[in-house]
Amino acid sequence: MENTIVILRLKHLKFLLIASLSLNLFAAIFFAKKLYVKYNASIETIEKKSDTTTTYWLKRNQLFEVLPKDKNTIVFLGNSLTQHFELAELFKNLNIRNRGINGDVIPAVIKRLSPITESCPKKIFIEIGINDLGRGAPKDTVIKNYEKLLERLQTECGSTRLFVQSIFPVANKSKTMAEYCSPKLNADIKFINQHLKEYSSLHDITFLDFHDSFVTDGELNPKFSVDGVHLTGEAYLLWTELLKPYVND
Amino acid sequence: MENTIVILRLKHLKFLLIASLSLNLFAAIFFAKKLYVKYNASIETIEKKSDTTTTYWLKRNQLFEVLPKDKNTIVFLGNSLTQHFELAELFKNLNIRNRGINGDVIPAVIKRLSPITESCPKKIFIEIGINDLGRGAPKDTVIKNYEKLLERLQTECGSTRLFVQSIFPVANKSKTMAEYCSPKLNADIKFINQHLKEYSSLHDITFLDFHDSFVTDGELNPKFSVDGVHLTGEAYLLWTELLKPYVND
Repeated sequence: MENTIVILRLKHLKFLLIASLSLNLFAAIFFAKKLYVKYNASIETIEKKSDTTTTYWLKRNQLFEVLPKDKNTIVFLGNSLTQHFELAELFKNLNIRNRGINGDVIPAVIKRLSPITESCPKKIFIEIGINDLGRGAPKDTVIKNYEKLLERLQTECGSTRLFVQSIFPVANKSKTMAEYCSPKLNADIKFINQHLKEYSSLHDITFLDFHDSFVTDGELNPKFSVDGVHLTGEAYLLWTELLKPYVND
Repeated sequence: MENTIVILRLKHLKFLLIASLSLNLFAAIFFAKKLYVKYNASIETIEKKSDTTTTYWLKRNQLFEVLPKDKNTIVFLGNSLTQHFELAELFKNLNIRNRGINGDVIPAVIKRLSPITESCPKKIFIEIGINDLGRGAPKDTVIKNYEKLLERLQTECGSTRLFVQSIFPVANKSKTMAEYCSPKLNADIKFINQHLKEYSSLHDITFLDFHDSFVTDGELNPKFSVDGVHLTGEAYLLWTELLKPYVND
């Protein structure tokens, strides 16, 4: 009798175990799939693919490609800081062209130069690099890519006046943009800016050193940012004032 | 002897079962947490909170608040379709102000009217509603909110000329914007547009019926969109041409 009970219990346990293990298998497959997607997404966001596969980038670049090409324009080339810059409104200048794309990195900017170099503009103001650093590119890679970008522009548009803007400081800490905000990143930014300054002076490029105007206590002044990276309206007004002599001359 | 083996197997099975059930408990907690986050996120994106809590919205609205207020301006008020419209460049008009915010819904637009009504502009072109529908707002709610927006504008800026633009068609199917693309959504868009047309004619508002210029076979012409909702450069050129008589007059 006791034996039968033990065997019955064994049967029940077996059944439960099979059910439970099946659930385990299901969960394991789910987690494996998630990990796989995450791994692939992280590859996607790395410089190699340069974001040029995201529909956001494609949409915006496709617009740039068909917008009428004019000579005598002033092109602002960059990432979200440029894209959110209401340039024509702030400079009251119809020759300005906003060519910023949210989240853009230097290799992706290099890939979208042709609509700009097709009819070389009068001036190009560049603001780029923070997304490269935020996504883990070493500072030497950022510098190498930046030089590649400037070489391309100088080769294809010899008459265009180039303005390299210092990379903006970031907060030392941020909740929403944690990867972009640390004292190490601020140190890298200063290092790259110093290098860009030297490179510019050797290559007939105007380096616009606005970095310190936005700094307080070694990081981005809190009044100039909502999230530690992106700029407030007040910061855009200051940026406009700093740029005016170079845009209008 | 046999009994002892059975009891031993029972012990092993029990141990396995406990381990397996623990894993399942862990997975269940994980899924419950995910569901909770998803549920809260979906609440967050619903009209009630109107996206005004996202840092993206806050950043962009904060910029609008500090940008210099001018009279005699032409304001374009809307969502991503407006934000990506390089208005000053395409219209060669310095009086134009881009007041589009990616992903914006009507209740959120109502919350950010003060920087616009503070110095009533000459004209306001409105393009809004697709995100409300895409996030599941019933068409009657969209209409009710749209009327509330127009009432506010007419009460606070009696002298401003209002232009209501028909909601653009969408694709009947889309991989990246599935919630925004279906024959049902296209039918809702037509229903709302018809209502806005009637409301406009009764309230001294100009209704700009561009919908059909972007349609082929009852859906957004594929050549005008990358993802079934957002517009290509070619679509922006057409939109510009359709708007020119009303912007320039």
